[in-house]
Amino acid sequence: MKRREFLSKAALGGIALGLAPQLSAIEQSLPVWCAPTTPMRGEKAGHGKGKMRLSFRPYELSLRHTFTVSSFSRNTTPTVQIGIDYEGYTGHGEASLPPYLGYTTEGTIQFLKKVDLEQFESPFLIEDILTYIDAIDSGESPAKAAIDIALHDLVGQLMGQPVYRLYGLNPKRCPSTSFTIGIDTPEVVREKTLECAGKFNVLKIKVGRSTDKEMVESIRSVTNLPLVVDANQGWTDREQALDMIFWLHEHGVLMAEQPMPKEQIDDTAWLTERSPIPIIADEACQRLCDINRLKGAYSGINIKLMKCTGIREAYKMMVYARAEGMKVMIGCMTETSCGVTAAASLSPLVDFADLDGNLLISNDLYEGVGLQGGKLTLPDRPGLGLKVL
Amino acid sequence: MKRREFLSKAALGGIALGLAPQLSAIEQSLPVWCAPTTPMRGEKAGHGKGKMRLSFRPYELSLRHTFTVSSFSRNTTPTVQIGIDYEGYTGHGEASLPPYLGYTTEGTIQFLKKVDLEQFESPFLIEDILTYIDAIDSGESPAKAAIDIALHDLVGQLMGQPVYRLYGLNPKRCPSTSFTIGIDTPEVVREKTLECAGKFNVLKIKVGRSTDKEMVESIRSVTNLPLVVDANQGWTDREQALDMIFWLHEHGVLMAEQPMPKEQIDDTAWLTERSPIPIIADEACQRLCDINRLKGAYSGINIKLMKCTGIREAYKMMVYARAEGMKVMIGCMTETSCGVTAAASLSPLVDFADLDGNLLISNDLYEGVGLQGGKLTLPDRPGLGLKVL
Repeated sequence: MKRREFLSKAALGGIALGLAPQLSAIEQSLPVWCAPTTPMRGEKAGHGKGKMRLSFRPYELSLRHTFTVSSFSRNTTPTVQIGIDYEGYTGHGEASLPPYLGYTTEGTIQFLKKVDLEQFESPFLIEDILTYIDAIDSGESPAKAAIDIALHDLVGQLMGQPVYRLYGLNPKRCPSTSFTIGIDTPEVVREKTLECAGKFNVLKIKVGRSTDKEMVESIRSVTNLPLVVDANQGWTDREQALDMIFWLHEHGVLMAEQPMPKEQIDDTAWLTERSPIPIIADEACQRLCDINRLKGAYSGINIKLMKCTGIREAYKMMVYARAEGMKVMIGCMTETSCGVTAAASLSPLVDFADLDGNLLISNDLYEGVGLQGGKLTLPDRPGLGLKVL
Repeated sequence: MKRREFLSKAALGGIALGLAPQLSAIEQSLPVWCAPTTPMRGEKAGHGKGKMRLSFRPYELSLRHTFTVSSFSRNTTPTVQIGIDYEGYTGHGEASLPPYLGYTTEGTIQFLKKVDLEQFESPFLIEDILTYIDAIDSGESPAKAAIDIALHDLVGQLMGQPVYRLYGLNPKRCPSTSFTIGIDTPEVVREKTLECAGKFNVLKIKVGRSTDKEMVESIRSVTNLPLVVDANQGWTDREQALDMIFWLHEHGVLMAEQPMPKEQIDDTAWLTERSPIPIIADEACQRLCDINRLKGAYSGINIKLMKCTGIREAYKMMVYARAEGMKVMIGCMTETSCGVTAAASLSPLVDFADLDGNLLISNDLYEGVGLQGGKLTLPDRPGLGLKVL
């Protein structure tokens, strides 16, 4: 269902949402967006007696291309879109729920129903609010990320400042994002690569199959652009993994994500020690508390807001990883420009960015992060700087 | 010399400061404060083409009571006070230079003369600016802290937000600060304790002398307030240190700072493992990069802005220490309310605060952080919220 249809349904229904545990999940899912009552910009913003009000609704992302892994195919990604209203401003947030992560729309909504933001005086109390949110449940990271993202968007709007500036970052330092070339026949791969080569500075491919070398050779037959690879835990023999990594390195691959199963930490350490390119933890690294045991075994970590509960913990993970001399990558799920812009706001701090999630969907809700010569660009507007489409 | 005298001298002299390496150190030290040319609050602040302008001057703090350690006494602490002007706003910062740290007024000024802030588009680029500042010299932490503090004050003013809010913190979570009872005769100690007991909730004493137990007993004869102790590396025998710590624990001591020389890290680990109270690193912990090797050996760290180059690195140290499950303390030198307010801005994140440095001087330049029932209070004003006295 498209946003406009949602809005007209909401108008017909006329139901105001928020914390209403007596409503069914479907009723809860009706949207209340952008309900500016008394815009109060300036000195008084955040000093009033306003209460934060949370609303949410499921929203299914339509993928531009069918996503296929060995066991299944899909054309959509479920999400829950949220809003936090406060003093006439609305902060937008998003929980992206690709099925393989194990989170569900139902679970996310059950979590959000438990959230009581009205107990907090203002959205500026980010540390208190996120500490409270994290304690509600040990899991549900995407739902937590949605709250974190909406809070940052809201606080930025209240302060009249872009989110990247809340973290003291220079938007001109946003890196290039990689873009994934799907596994396909050599002809299709060459065609797709030629299409992408003009727009992106780094290409990414999934590896861990018998066709890996063919894929790389197909790409290399049409471009010399640097590559990064993601094995998604696909290699179990460290010697073979190392051979493959040397071959990839010789073919212009800059970095490899999660080459081996996350449980094989000693094998990964062996591999990292010998690898000519950085080995980055993805499945092995969810949150701040995970990094400590990854030191030595990996060269760096791939941080995703949906794994790590949001912008604030992502920043803390970057601080920690840097203090340990580790490389930092930021990635995403298939998400609207809300989630991807939130991640991009911290991208001036990373070595590798893989933020193409919004480019893979056909029904984005926002205009936000952009691309210029393959580099990420951030809107020079308060909060996440999203424009509702 | 008092601030007012400085100001009148400056008016007479009429010398504008900043980067003027041809001027002598004394000429450099003439103040240029608060020169608001075109106040531009609101939408345009920080978007203009203004340049940051740095000024600085030495300022000697007068101590209310003579500071005595075994080898010497002193009645003053040298500082360098700085200002960063930008678009009509001035951010204030401070380098406090107690002689035992080894930093000097001359060295600080030499460092500040090398700083070129005009190359940066705006003070909002905190990460870039502080990375540049840190690379100028491997030492000179107090000078770096002065820049960091002034930048935070400036950015907060430009955003119209208190510094604690830039870090998402709740000022109501500011802890009680400890206050140090100087070593003296039992009568004087009892008298001072009675004076302080109404104002503070935690008292601190320096230990590591033969009179330690007498000190504690004198205090305990008039109050049951919790105590913390700082041994300043004073104990070299770990068995004796542990005996003493048990005795102190039985007498209501909550925490011990730097019991043994920082080089005795194995002995300290042995002690921490057996201690009933947290053992906090002070001399052993200067910057973010130090924490890694202190894990296991200490329960936590004492962060001081003058050691660690300022608010931003202090925040990163807190993030890192928390991720390692370590306790966090924040302390200070003798400083004006500028430096102490800057430290107090992060105090909602700590377990122990020892922020009495501004209370020990008789010629403070600012009104800033306050005390209410022994707890630190932060001004609800933009930036550090300082009022010039």
